[in-house]
Amino acid sequence: EIAEAAARRLAPVEPGPLAGRHVLVTSGPTHEPIDPVRYIANRSSGKQGHAIAAAAARAGARVTLVCGPVNLPDPAGVTVRPVETARQMLAAVEAALPADAAIFAAAVADWRAAREAGEKMKKDGGAIPALALTENPDILATIAHDPARRPRLVVGFAAETENVVGYAQAKRARKGCDWIVANDVSPRSGIVGGVMGGDENQVHLITETGVEHWPTASKSDVAERLVARIAAALGPLE
Amino acid sequence: EIAEAAARRLAPVEPGPLAGRHVLVTSGPTHEPIDPVRYIANRSSGKQGHAIAAAAARAGARVTLVCGPVNLPDPAGVTVRPVETARQMLAAVEAALPADAAIFAAAVADWRAAREAGEKMKKDGGAIPALALTENPDILATIAHDPARRPRLVVGFAAETENVVGYAQAKRARKGCDWIVANDVSPRSGIVGGVMGGDENQVHLITETGVEHWPTASKSDVAERLVARIAAALGPLE
Repeated sequence: EIAEAAARRLAPVEPGPLAGRHVLVTSGPTHEPIDPVRYIANRSSGKQGHAIAAAAARAGARVTLVCGPVNLPDPAGVTVRPVETARQMLAAVEAALPADAAIFAAAVADWRAAREAGEKMKKDGGAIPALALTENPDILATIAHDPARRPRLVVGFAAETENVVGYAQAKRARKGCDWIVANDVSPRSGIVGGVMGGDENQVHLITETGVEHWPTASKSDVAERLVARIAAALGPLE
Repeated sequence: EIAEAAARRLAPVEPGPLAGRHVLVTSGPTHEPIDPVRYIANRSSGKQGHAIAAAAARAGARVTLVCGPVNLPDPAGVTVRPVETARQMLAAVEAALPADAAIFAAAVADWRAAREAGEKMKKDGGAIPALALTENPDILATIAHDPARRPRLVVGFAAETENVVGYAQAKRARKGCDWIVANDVSPRSGIVGGVMGGDENQVHLITETGVEHWPTASKSDVAERLVARIAAALGPLE
């Protein structure tokens, strides 16, 4: 009996389905400064992206997690690269390449302030400012459209409040990615606490072959299922 | 010896210097929605305001803490009213009155989006939006200038990145409050981690008689010192 236990303990741990792979995940929001104290943000909690990074690590992958400002512990066994803005996130993603698969789950701000004020903007005695915006880099499209650096599998996320699947299908084509994980982040989604910030998610997986409607599940279960699909798509290591 | 211990235990706890007082504190940032997923925020962590609420409760006051979105535990012995926007914060403050003293430590957004979009704003195929802003209610000035509802002692905060004392003195006169607690939130303040988000603060107390420069201290120590000053200003209960 003792010998058996020792043998079990000494036996090589079965390698996970992503052993030998490098998986890059982005997670969380970005914060785009307006001035030294104000910024534009979004409601992403990072829970879904962090759960994907954790699941990929459990599946044996080497995982790099590029994440915006979140209030979450670093997932076990994951290399975390914290960033604040979309531009910092793109630079951290580029520095982390090459990767076998990239899952862009972060809610990257589409726009930032056109000019970041060096001192705090003052209210009194002046006109109300209008905030001029400028477009941020599109991290998903930048990486997916770059044949030299593109991971073999590129997965984007789409958070929509209306026409969720239609927008996501158009996004998949436009961004040049393989899959889109789409979810409805409107209050009417019926997810307790809302998808953004809550612990559950109900997603649609848009692939080259069609749309799969996944049932409502914990973000951890959604992550496990997505990681299993990623492992199947990458196939065994040569 | 046992009798002495029992006597000590049965002796009435000495009432704190704020016993019988109602103290209203605001804390944290406000979040101003742009659309269902985006918002304008500021870097207030709520640490200083929460520390003041906790110190006032330890001094025996009944404390109402109106706080924006923070990642802090509720202080012990304090009634917490969570809000998100400046307009919600004003309504919660008005509902909590009357109070003997009010300390407006929250970093209320000066502006909000002029129109909150009902659906997520889309990036693709359109022009870059400019964000039209409109002014939020001025909670400090509203309460300080209202003779019917004004607490006897009204304390405002000023977070500045330049000309800290000058701006704060002008703010005290303009807002109609009794004191201003002013601090320098610029990176050059020398506070480790920055005043916003960090655990230390270096403040200037602007009163009717002048300016006191307090030494750098923990936010908890700054809170204790401020609460002692508030108790002295209110004097003993009649």
